[in-house]
Amino acid sequence: MKFGILGTGGVGQTIGSALIAKGHEVMLGSRTAANEKAVAWTNANGSNASNGTFADAAAFGEVLFICLNGNGVIDALQSAGAENFNNKVVIDLTNPLDFSKGMPPSLLPQYCNTWSLGEEIQKQLPTAFVVKALNTVTANLMVDANRVNDGHHNLFICGNDVDAKIKVKHLLADNFNWKPEFILDLGDIKHARMTEAIVPFWVAVMQAEKTPMFNYMIVT
Amino acid sequence: MKFGILGTGGVGQTIGSALIAKGHEVMLGSRTAANEKAVAWTNANGSNASNGTFADAAAFGEVLFICLNGNGVIDALQSAGAENFNNKVVIDLTNPLDFSKGMPPSLLPQYCNTWSLGEEIQKQLPTAFVVKALNTVTANLMVDANRVNDGHHNLFICGNDVDAKIKVKHLLADNFNWKPEFILDLGDIKHARMTEAIVPFWVAVMQAEKTPMFNYMIVT
Repeated sequence: MKFGILGTGGVGQTIGSALIAKGHEVMLGSRTAANEKAVAWTNANGSNASNGTFADAAAFGEVLFICLNGNGVIDALQSAGAENFNNKVVIDLTNPLDFSKGMPPSLLPQYCNTWSLGEEIQKQLPTAFVVKALNTVTANLMVDANRVNDGHHNLFICGNDVDAKIKVKHLLADNFNWKPEFILDLGDIKHARMTEAIVPFWVAVMQAEKTPMFNYMIVT
Repeated sequence: MKFGILGTGGVGQTIGSALIAKGHEVMLGSRTAANEKAVAWTNANGSNASNGTFADAAAFGEVLFICLNGNGVIDALQSAGAENFNNKVVIDLTNPLDFSKGMPPSLLPQYCNTWSLGEEIQKQLPTAFVVKALNTVTANLMVDANRVNDGHHNLFICGNDVDAKIKVKHLLADNFNWKPEFILDLGDIKHARMTEAIVPFWVAVMQAEKTPMFNYMIVT
């Protein structure tokens, strides 16, 4: 399959390399076509890897991953062009974290409590099928769920389109070793408020546990 | 020991009855001394149970539990009198939930993201040792951790005073079956922002799992 990834940071590169390793074609998108980090990633990842602008990557991918910093998301989507997301599954990994007030971070006030980046992205891309996923774990765990507790821990997803969520579940199971029975669908995209709001808590737990390589398993 | 409980709802009554069952003396406090629910609880719980005003309960307890609705906390503390909390361990179970906008709830805007009820309570009671605890699980699980997964799941606490947090850990282990190694101290009372912010998420998980009798176990 062809995947487009918006964002060239650690998360975007980690997702991209993991998809390349599974035999997919991946284009990393950034603000400028010649972004240094993206070029280096392309050179390191073989003939199925490429890079371009946000618009190039959005047009390229059959499925898209949004791996941007929270405060850069909206500009990037406008630069990418909403028409390039038309009828595509868009996996939103973003978090509206605000580190300006120290650790643990708070949320950017405009994406807090009664609104979320997930909802804003769906609003900006009305003809796309946005699924919020993977934003609650560290990058290396996103792409290999087996790295923690033999894959027995939970991922929380949400989105308005049921078929898109089913596709994302399959994609995460087939490529990233997530066990479908541990992927919990919380409901429509409004639930991004809840899954984004637990990320400052995640940072506090990371500080207490002294590792980012953990997750939560729901037990009853 | 003598415990005072502020609040006569399901959480306060459940905590109170569990402490009575362990042989402690408990006074439930409410806005008025003759609160019907509190009188009924006293009559049902034997000679170690009593009830009175918020001030009566705060003065009575060596250790105090705050089990109030989020939007009633500050009035109740002012009615109770800050001097009655002097040098006492105060366990804060409150959540600033706002159900006025539908389910899952949001947080009351004044206790959201960059401030919390835990911090506000510590500010209102500057000579007390406030420990935020138990606010992330359902009442019946608060008082018997063994009801889920043989007690293998996590409780998150925070507060400014290290000795107070150690006392609370012992109290939770001795009375409510919480395993000390599963009680994670996140740091100072500022971390109440994080442990309160995960409660709307808890409600969403409860709706997806169709039971409140669950918790999270951190796995690595």
